[in-house]
Amino acid sequence: MMDIRNIINKKRNKAELTDDEIRYFIQKYNRGEVLESQAGALLSYIYLNGLTDREILSLTLAMANSGDKLDLSEISDNIIDKHSTGGIGDKVTLILMPLIAALGLPVAKISSRGLGISGGTIDKLESIPGFNTEISLEEFEENIRDVGVSIINQTFNLAPAEQKMYKLRNLVSCADSLPLVAASLMSIKLASGSNKIAFDITCGSGTYIKTKEEAKKLGKMLVKLGNQLGKKVGYVISLMDEPLGHSIGHVLEVKETIQCLRGKMPQDIGEVVVALGSVILELSGRRKNIDENSKIIIDTINSGKALLKFKEMVASQGGSIKYIEQPEEFSKAKYIVPVYATESGNIEKIDADIVGSIARYLGAGRMNEDNEIDKTAGIVLEKKIGDSIETGGVLAYIHTNDESKVLGATQNLKEAYKLTNKKVVKKSRVLEIM
Amino acid sequence: MMDIRNIINKKRNKAELTDDEIRYFIQKYNRGEVLESQAGALLSYIYLNGLTDREILSLTLAMANSGDKLDLSEISDNIIDKHSTGGIGDKVTLILMPLIAALGLPVAKISSRGLGISGGTIDKLESIPGFNTEISLEEFEENIRDVGVSIINQTFNLAPAEQKMYKLRNLVSCADSLPLVAASLMSIKLASGSNKIAFDITCGSGTYIKTKEEAKKLGKMLVKLGNQLGKKVGYVISLMDEPLGHSIGHVLEVKETIQCLRGKMPQDIGEVVVALGSVILELSGRRKNIDENSKIIIDTINSGKALLKFKEMVASQGGSIKYIEQPEEFSKAKYIVPVYATESGNIEKIDADIVGSIARYLGAGRMNEDNEIDKTAGIVLEKKIGDSIETGGVLAYIHTNDESKVLGATQNLKEAYKLTNKKVVKKSRVLEIM
Repeated sequence: MMDIRNIINKKRNKAELTDDEIRYFIQKYNRGEVLESQAGALLSYIYLNGLTDREILSLTLAMANSGDKLDLSEISDNIIDKHSTGGIGDKVTLILMPLIAALGLPVAKISSRGLGISGGTIDKLESIPGFNTEISLEEFEENIRDVGVSIINQTFNLAPAEQKMYKLRNLVSCADSLPLVAASLMSIKLASGSNKIAFDITCGSGTYIKTKEEAKKLGKMLVKLGNQLGKKVGYVISLMDEPLGHSIGHVLEVKETIQCLRGKMPQDIGEVVVALGSVILELSGRRKNIDENSKIIIDTINSGKALLKFKEMVASQGGSIKYIEQPEEFSKAKYIVPVYATESGNIEKIDADIVGSIARYLGAGRMNEDNEIDKTAGIVLEKKIGDSIETGGVLAYIHTNDESKVLGATQNLKEAYKLTNKKVVKKSRVLEIM
Repeated sequence: MMDIRNIINKKRNKAELTDDEIRYFIQKYNRGEVLESQAGALLSYIYLNGLTDREILSLTLAMANSGDKLDLSEISDNIIDKHSTGGIGDKVTLILMPLIAALGLPVAKISSRGLGISGGTIDKLESIPGFNTEISLEEFEENIRDVGVSIINQTFNLAPAEQKMYKLRNLVSCADSLPLVAASLMSIKLASGSNKIAFDITCGSGTYIKTKEEAKKLGKMLVKLGNQLGKKVGYVISLMDEPLGHSIGHVLEVKETIQCLRGKMPQDIGEVVVALGSVILELSGRRKNIDENSKIIIDTINSGKALLKFKEMVASQGGSIKYIEQPEEFSKAKYIVPVYATESGNIEKIDADIVGSIARYLGAGRMNEDNEIDKTAGIVLEKKIGDSIETGGVLAYIHTNDESKVLGATQNLKEAYKLTNKKVVKKSRVLEIM
């Protein structure tokens, strides 16, 4: 008879688990029959001793099969998905989704609310008045057919074991276990029915993967897993040392998204959008040449086609177009407070992790699952790495509805900036395209 | 601010935890603020990376301080305690407690019900009609003063964190983590107010410590911990490959205890009783010479003084003396079924773990916390290692009130016996005295 303790012992002793053992663990854990303590122990030994390729595949399948599975094959066998491993100020999904759809490739995005310091895509879109992310599966499929793109909140029972494992990983400090991350990501993609998946693997202080080497390892795992599962997988490795773009917070990020779709794209966002867009074009077999792909992406922005598709998407899910056309109509936080530099110099570093924590503190993230989010709260960075500043100049703005938080947030944000007298060369955001 | 995840990470990275960190973990875990998954993860890394002497001491103190503490110093500063790390058929506590008290040394025993396959001392004593183990603390102290010995069930809040850790260790397969075992054992002794503690460290197939080397390590840890805490600690390492004595089960073990106190002691029980008794005499400063100590122990049995003290103890806690004087009065199981040998040979091995499992299956152990125990159920081994048997001879008797269990138990018990044609030399049960 199988016993979870024998499975724990095996992994502790660096042995390879069988498919049956992995399935047993996931099924029992999903039903609450393997206890949290036991799952925590097993994950710890996996953290130290790793998983073989076969084990990763088994784990992926077991989690994917733990609940419902979407079948979008009637719409297309070329369904595009894009997934970022997480970062601060990351609004690339909002920009890329309509952009790719504008190129005639169907985009199906199943997303979730943000749990950690980075707000979820669902939360961001819901800051557009009227936007409904809890449409039915029928409407979702209809929108993909008619508009070419749709986004839906993960309210149904998709890979529930993965959701449990995701929470557990964070609790037991295994968020950066690459085999567990790879299996989690691919199990959701498997259950959600997409065929061509582009991953933005972020690395740096603002995310759980700290080095490029680790990011590369994860990328290779995902490609290998994709091959085994009959999915086409590509990835971009991007730097997440400072926040992406200027805005952090829900309304603020939607407004920056609109700016980007209007062609005023900050350099760092542009780099990531072009890189990921090119990967997606390549995955879908549209174009072979990377320079040509980049040009198509930029043209789709500059021609206004991506913005038009964004509006169509918003309209199709009940959102008010007025706000897209006049972003100044969005509600604002009560207190918008400048953070002044107390010395002059060149910005050498902006700790994305700290900036994210401050944004959450201001109300832009959930402190726990039941927390309401303040959609208008957040941060706008005026100065980014490579910029120079004079004493008394504005580094950033804090947006909040809670006056008591202004002082603390201001001080912490100032400390997130590291200044130097030496010249700072702005690094490229995209480290690798695969 | 302290975070359990940082503590988990530290131990994962083989760093030494501070006193504060260990206290933080135990206090928060005891209050349910450190989650089971997180505690399971931390224990797993402790299992692999160990604990330093200082960490073991911190952990012991943190668990000892998690609840009430008994102070028996008004009775004596020479309170004796004896503790076995566990085994099958182990009734040594029942024999030694009155024996030591008969020598004028005060014995205070706080015990608990059996959870695993081996029944607890409390459960065994309660099979004597009338015997009350849930007397008040005042009665407990009075009995130690007047009779010289008393036993009480652990119903008050003694080292509650240790109780949680004990359960957790079993769930996450860390029962044999020596630093965790040492800290657990000493934390209870610290909270229960004894000063001189003799441990019976069992090793072999019937317990969680498998080798003599491991047992020795644990012994050294306990002595060192004792020194640091101002307690005198001694130990005996004994073999637990086959069950101790002939009887397994509550009434059956009490009956064998009475036999032993009457001077008819099986050789293996005798060895352990003499060794532990000698250690206790040495700890309490009574005698220096091990041979002289052994003689005193044997004399106390043979003179009937130990049996007399046993009766006094039983009477002082409300138990009926009649059963001690006429053990045949104890109720018996409905079915007492012989297990016959199907081949002849010399008994080479009797797997204690399997025998324990069968006894539990027959009703002599708890399958879960709420289980009622069948006091009359159990096993009597007619043949032990070194004995020879003819085909059709009786290996053992099964005692049960559930007829449906006879067949399975018989077959399994037969399989627990390994026979050989070669001569088997009976090994000494006591491997080391410290």
